Amino acid sequence: MLNRIQELNPKLNVYLTTCEETAIGQATEAERALCSRARSKSRRDRGTLHGIPISLKDNIYTAGVRTTGGSKILREFVPLDDAQVVASLKRAGAVILGKTNMHEFAYGVTTENPHFGAAHNPWDLERIAGGSSGGSAAALAAGLCYGSIGTDTGGSIRIPAALCGVVGLKPGMGSVDAQHVIPLSKTLDVVGPMARTVEDVALLFRAICVEAKNEGQSSSRRPPRARRFILGIPKEFYFHVLSQEVELSFQTAIRVLNKLGVRFKEVSIPLLAETEEAGNQIAWAEATSHHQQAGWFPQRAGEYGEDVRVRLEMGTKVSAVDYLGAFELRAKFIASLRDAVLASGIDALVVPTTPIVAPRLAEDSVTIKGTKHSTRALLLRLNRPANLAGVPAISVPCGLTGSGLPGGFQLVGGLGGELQLLELARRFEQACPLNAQPNLYFAD
Amino acid sequence: MLNRIQELNPKLNVYLTTCEETAIGQATEAERALCSRARSKSRRDRGTLHGIPISLKDNIYTAGVRTTGGSKILREFVPLDDAQVVASLKRAGAVILGKTNMHEFAYGVTTENPHFGAAHNPWDLERIAGGSSGGSAAALAAGLCYGSIGTDTGGSIRIPAALCGVVGLKPGMGSVDAQHVIPLSKTLDVVGPMARTVEDVALLFRAICVEAKNEGQSSSRRPPRARRFILGIPKEFYFHVLSQEVELSFQTAIRVLNKLGVRFKEVSIPLLAETEEAGNQIAWAEATSHHQQAGWFPQRAGEYGEDVRVRLEMGTKVSAVDYLGAFELRAKFIASLRDAVLASGIDALVVPTTPIVAPRLAEDSVTIKGTKHSTRALLLRLNRPANLAGVPAISVPCGLTGSGLPGGFQLVGGLGGELQLLELARRFEQACPLNAQPNLYFAD
Repeated sequence: MLNRIQELNPKLNVYLTTCEETAIGQATEAERALCSRARSKSRRDRGTLHGIPISLKDNIYTAGVRTTGGSKILREFVPLDDAQVVASLKRAGAVILGKTNMHEFAYGVTTENPHFGAAHNPWDLERIAGGSSGGSAAALAAGLCYGSIGTDTGGSIRIPAALCGVVGLKPGMGSVDAQHVIPLSKTLDVVGPMARTVEDVALLFRAICVEAKNEGQSSSRRPPRARRFILGIPKEFYFHVLSQEVELSFQTAIRVLNKLGVRFKEVSIPLLAETEEAGNQIAWAEATSHHQQAGWFPQRAGEYGEDVRVRLEMGTKVSAVDYLGAFELRAKFIASLRDAVLASGIDALVVPTTPIVAPRLAEDSVTIKGTKHSTRALLLRLNRPANLAGVPAISVPCGLTGSGLPGGFQLVGGLGGELQLLELARRFEQACPLNAQPNLYFAD
Repeated sequence: MLNRIQELNPKLNVYLTTCEETAIGQATEAERALCSRARSKSRRDRGTLHGIPISLKDNIYTAGVRTTGGSKILREFVPLDDAQVVASLKRAGAVILGKTNMHEFAYGVTTENPHFGAAHNPWDLERIAGGSSGGSAAALAAGLCYGSIGTDTGGSIRIPAALCGVVGLKPGMGSVDAQHVIPLSKTLDVVGPMARTVEDVALLFRAICVEAKNEGQSSSRRPPRARRFILGIPKEFYFHVLSQEVELSFQTAIRVLNKLGVRFKEVSIPLLAETEEAGNQIAWAEATSHHQQAGWFPQRAGEYGEDVRVRLEMGTKVSAVDYLGAFELRAKFIASLRDAVLASGIDALVVPTTPIVAPRLAEDSVTIKGTKHSTRALLLRLNRPANLAGVPAISVPCGLTGSGLPGGFQLVGGLGGELQLLELARRFEQACPLNAQPNLYFAD
């Protein structure tokens, strides 16, 4: 894996830091533990992640390993502590390979990083990996790790997962400890797993969720019994702005789910359109507040990339009354989502992850059916509702679109429903595996 | 009691609504229950508040009885439900006498109400009762109820209690249910009891606290065992701006406590001075947000009194970043308070309640030792820290000052420490009862 990183990272720019020495140390120790005859089985085999090479988004604290947050400001920052999630991974036997590229301070969805360079999409090096956990998704797609941990405030796990053809789970609020992870927007941020298959994401989730921490090892949560799932398809919002190739890709996903015996119900969720504005108000204000409290903004405004600086300035203009109003709307939206789900007896919503496949680098706007949209707004659009509601959502690949790029769809569940989403996604994946990988040896 | 209200309310203007018919009905039923031979004792005697006439601040919902919030906007508002606290009082046998005058929407500390007229201080009708629960405090001092329920966002129970010579307990955050009480600032508001003696306040608190609701009757919380109390006297902030008569009155309280065997320790609590600004930012923003969400502001701006309208306008100018910054400061202040208390092993802080005795009606500023201060800022000054920290605080009278007006001091405890504060206040009261009452028959 380290050799592969050495070979491909110059093309992809997905690792900001690799931990070669400690990774080899951890791998050697893992191997020795399994080979040792002297100890009891429980001490030899540390579980599902024993010896598995994992990467971490570079906003997750790693003791003794620099954690830049993708920023110039923290370029030299070396934390004293591991984030809780890193401690959990290590306890489960994982080998930490390195820290992945990301959008500066996780405040954007393209991972075009002005300080470390853009992460490239392995399916087409001229295209973005998505963000903000772009390095993680691209590293997975390129085979440069077996799992990764990202963060998601408005889609930052699911967007790059969809654009790079990997699986990304945004857990529900409170399901994974977020201590010692550089915050973007404290009431929206969550930490979650990404991998090449649903099963790997499930293994990671069980290792890092809060129950795992409490139970000392992997979570004892049980997946729901095999049954006939009912999925809700929202009438509003999700299908209003979609590129044709994503539309076709989503229809494929629905056909596969249908063959699996899933039933569908149309559901109505009012206020979906209003979540965009409310999400912006909350994220802008909380991000600027954090950067101000940290003493970075406005004092070190010149050290930010242009796009992040502009967003931090927008945060200063949100009024407290609008911020509190966004929370009132958030509460009403959660209630309407809960009512829609309860009333229809559905297990989850099924919607696309992004309205477009991976855009080209520096492509600030995309035209869909004659109308020009901001790339950033498009990529966030279908993701933010789950952040505002605090519910889990998983992005799953569903084949390649006409342009040969991956498409993805999203399952959005109820609080605490991660294992149910994972079970449904697993069935989908068995019926419709991606069965393709980017050919990086011809890419240049 | 109803006759006394009829006689004195025209002078004092402390009741906005009296419930004569239902009060007599409840009293008759209470009497009958005690006299009835047929039933078991438990069904006859409903406990400590059986038949006791209680008043309620007019921002507390009463089913079928108008609840104006002291406002023109809600002049005709008749709730369908009782607030939880009212249900608890009724279950404990209380007779609800009526609804008391208050500062408009609880957004001020003088109870000079532009729509219903000012509440007058029974000790000097030319002076304010304080606020925002001014009607409750003045009604108690004048003997127009035996207990009252007020609300406290920045001192609204303790300020009028101190200015009128009665006892007022601001419970800790979460100790008393605040549902169906018109909000002022949702993260600072608490509901609490007021009465003429500490023992009566304790009876009321036991009847309305959340444990009482859960246990069906009065709380089973036990007062702490008799022991030697240690009180903290803060080095910072509390004694910087005090009128001479309040200084003397506070020294008297300290002497009495000293004779009771209380020990004192000087404690240092950083950030106290910063709580004023943080408290304002939070209260202004949350108040305006609520009035905006309710559709009152700015649509019906003309129906507010001048002072409240100006404050609601100030709320629109608070930025979200400053609001969130105030919460960061709030968290740091709570930590510094906890550290100071833990490090010194103290039971509570002892400080004055207000830097001045009751000012005259319309006296917008007060001069202390040559410096002019806003009356509003002075009255809030020593109270707000307990709201920001969410901890309980009780104001207890300590005799009359040189000008013949009541003085009061405050005990500020730790979360969940209401009964400890009440026990200490009870000992003080036994040693130093007020032993005086306003003579309302000579007042004009």
